[in-house]
Amino acid sequence: MTGWLAIAGLGPGAAQLVTPEVTQSLAEATDLIGYGPYVTRVPERAGLTRHLSDNREEIDRASLALRLAAEGKRVVVVSSGDPGVFAMAAAVFEAVETGDPSWCDLDIRVLPGISAMFAAAARIGAPLGHDFCAINLSDNLKPWDLVERRLRLAAQADFVIALYNPLSSARPWQLGRALDLLREELPGEVPVVFASAVSDAKEAIETVTLRDAGAGRADMRTLVLIGSSRTRLIARSGGKPFVYTPRSIGVVS
Amino acid sequence: MTGWLAIAGLGPGAAQLVTPEVTQSLAEATDLIGYGPYVTRVPERAGLTRHLSDNREEIDRASLALRLAAEGKRVVVVSSGDPGVFAMAAAVFEAVETGDPSWCDLDIRVLPGISAMFAAAARIGAPLGHDFCAINLSDNLKPWDLVERRLRLAAQADFVIALYNPLSSARPWQLGRALDLLREELPGEVPVVFASAVSDAKEAIETVTLRDAGAGRADMRTLVLIGSSRTRLIARSGGKPFVYTPRSIGVVS
Repeated sequence: MTGWLAIAGLGPGAAQLVTPEVTQSLAEATDLIGYGPYVTRVPERAGLTRHLSDNREEIDRASLALRLAAEGKRVVVVSSGDPGVFAMAAAVFEAVETGDPSWCDLDIRVLPGISAMFAAAARIGAPLGHDFCAINLSDNLKPWDLVERRLRLAAQADFVIALYNPLSSARPWQLGRALDLLREELPGEVPVVFASAVSDAKEAIETVTLRDAGAGRADMRTLVLIGSSRTRLIARSGGKPFVYTPRSIGVVS
Repeated sequence: MTGWLAIAGLGPGAAQLVTPEVTQSLAEATDLIGYGPYVTRVPERAGLTRHLSDNREEIDRASLALRLAAEGKRVVVVSSGDPGVFAMAAAVFEAVETGDPSWCDLDIRVLPGISAMFAAAARIGAPLGHDFCAINLSDNLKPWDLVERRLRLAAQADFVIALYNPLSSARPWQLGRALDLLREELPGEVPVVFASAVSDAKEAIETVTLRDAGAGRADMRTLVLIGSSRTRLIARSGGKPFVYTPRSIGVVS
């Protein structure tokens, strides 16, 4: 039997946002590996072994996946969103580079998924309609100074900014500090979107101004989008405003 | 009949990368609108009117879609990739803001898709594994000075940089200029990926160094990924190298 390893993105939550490619790999798998809440999104079935792990054991999880694939298993490592965006794909390739040399030549495929920022953006309009960036606000694996430097340069570039992993119980102050820093660089009227549990039953999305944006609106499952100076709101009588960033500089002003 | 408008992302090309949500909206639609090559990806069927248009008529196309939805049609505007990334969603919301005031209260939904940079990244490893940005290299709707400013700040932030729309027959010199500018800011060894027609039969992906990257490797369908100073290659005896950007600063060095 020839083993393989697929690193698959389950998207933000809804089954309607999982690609057929990912669904097919899950149907063919013998082993499923990932953070507990993601693994349990995939129904149990005969012939499938589910390996649930803690959130922090990424390299261990990646190495287990590679060992099983080398033994001939058909292994799927699941991530939420897109596996290449602040998720398991980079951890697997780190394990490939630093682990058993034979792992380089395994059949390893990355199966893309809908990342949180696109799911969130789609629910409110088109805030990413112009140039944008994505920053992981966690300083577990990089110095906080670098996060601050990137936030400042991104604001000066007038990118729309997506903030992943804005805070956790172990990182309670980082989002507040980031918002303070962005207020030094950007107009107070810039729209800020707090999008939680997008496409789930618990979905909650609110749009405020940067002036009024407080870290208390976010939790571990929140994606924060900071508009550029051009990002606009369209009021609606029947619901929340649309938020979008025009493609042009100066077309709507 | 209650009309609606869905702005749907078809992904990079392969049917396996179209979400079930998009497939369902296409099955329910009465009218399909978009740039010719994208519309013709959707098979003809009884009850579906296909409106093919030129690449440049985005606001006309958006206004037609809104008028039809207001008349009670079930309209899908198709984009390749994700509709919110340098595609039709922002054009539709521009048309909403500047057009008939009643359009604000139409049922308008954006259905996300797999954008080119994630499809390309997945084919080679995990180059977007750390902070990154996306820049539309077209200066049709923004001044070239702003593109240069963003490129420079993005390189100084050490983002991985995805360049969309790198060149066309009407914009022949912009990618070359961008690469020259990036060579002033980044080490020559930084990997650069040219990814064309990802997931299609004509897929072609090559990875070179920034030092050797020339605009001649790109065409209209190419997505260009510029690594950060941390982006790494893993050689393989059996094929092209993997390209990835570690999650950590300093974990692999």
